[in-house]
Amino acid sequence: MSQLKKTLLGSIAPLMLSGMLIAQVAPVNASEADQKQYARFTQDNELLTPRNYREWMFIGAQVTPKDMNDGKPAFPEFHNVYIDPVSWAHWKRTGEFRDGTIIVKELTGVGAKQSASGNGYFQGDFNGIAATVKDSKRFADRMENWAYFTFDSYDAKKGNIQDDEACAACHKANAEEDMVFSQHYPVLRAAKPGK
Amino acid sequence: MSQLKKTLLGSIAPLMLSGMLIAQVAPVNASEADQKQYARFTQDNELLTPRNYREWMFIGAQVTPKDMNDGKPAFPEFHNVYIDPVSWAHWKRTGEFRDGTIIVKELTGVGAKQSASGNGYFQGDFNGIAATVKDSKRFADRMENWAYFTFDSYDAKKGNIQDDEACAACHKANAEEDMVFSQHYPVLRAAKPGK
Repeated sequence: MSQLKKTLLGSIAPLMLSGMLIAQVAPVNASEADQKQYARFTQDNELLTPRNYREWMFIGAQVTPKDMNDGKPAFPEFHNVYIDPVSWAHWKRTGEFRDGTIIVKELTGVGAKQSASGNGYFQGDFNGIAATVKDSKRFADRMENWAYFTFDSYDAKKGNIQDDEACAACHKANAEEDMVFSQHYPVLRAAKPGK
Repeated sequence: MSQLKKTLLGSIAPLMLSGMLIAQVAPVNASEADQKQYARFTQDNELLTPRNYREWMFIGAQVTPKDMNDGKPAFPEFHNVYIDPVSWAHWKRTGEFRDGTIIVKELTGVGAKQSASGNGYFQGDFNGIAATVKDSKRFADRMENWAYFTFDSYDAKKGNIQDDEACAACHKANAEEDMVFSQHYPVLRAAKPGK
């Protein structure tokens, strides 16, 4: 065998091996992707402020305007609600919220009540975010294992965990699907398996 | 040099080359991804009904309720608005809507006017979709190169193109950003370069 031929064989074999490695690695990566966590925490179990959530999966919007709530709605005013993409994929597959599910509610003021499309409520500027995370290990002592967080500002590094009475109790009493107000989220309902 | 050492060297070089190939191929793939078109047409230039748009990029929601529009809003009632992901990436990079941009407006009825979060408007069930596509070649004769489509149902295979007077004229007169009502879309505004 010539030296050239040996070198070529030496070149091809690892390329094939490399190809095999890619083929073998891919499923591992897919599995890792399935496990990706969007809720990130400090060492003291404090939720880091979610970022880039506007590019997650939108599941619904509602509006509780000031002028329908004596000027002081609990959550002013539009609520744009997002779920992280891996938990969304899990929901579509199982109809359940996985451990690690994070849902962000972004509040937006009413910017106008009239536009070319008619009378109504139209979004103005952002008012801040709130978030909830489900985790049966991290939040084993929380109601249905969901913890709720407020944030002092968009610049806050981390959230403020809320007592169960502040958020969870109301979700438990009124939300239709595992503490989530699916009754207001047609996008979520339509994607549930078997629907 | 031992045979083993030669083989090892032969193994390393193509792996390095392979790494270089990956590095060179990636931009080509990225470029192809940049060109991906989500608006798809029949041979007769009719827009095929968009699918899977709920997993595109959400840019805003407004509500024109029946009870604020004499029972007959032009678009009943919530409008959930989505842009295709590649046009979204282009918007973030350039602040412009590329050729091929498709924006889908999904209408959703008001399901409730009261919930645990207060009084307001809460989404019920889907009412159908409308869409608009910008294309300077395909729609060279359309106002600002945007064409507007309605759909008879979710099952419709294709859309019904609308006269400029039906949709485009109003968008031209009232929308703040290239025929798009960005004044109602804080998500869109916040992502514009330089904002």
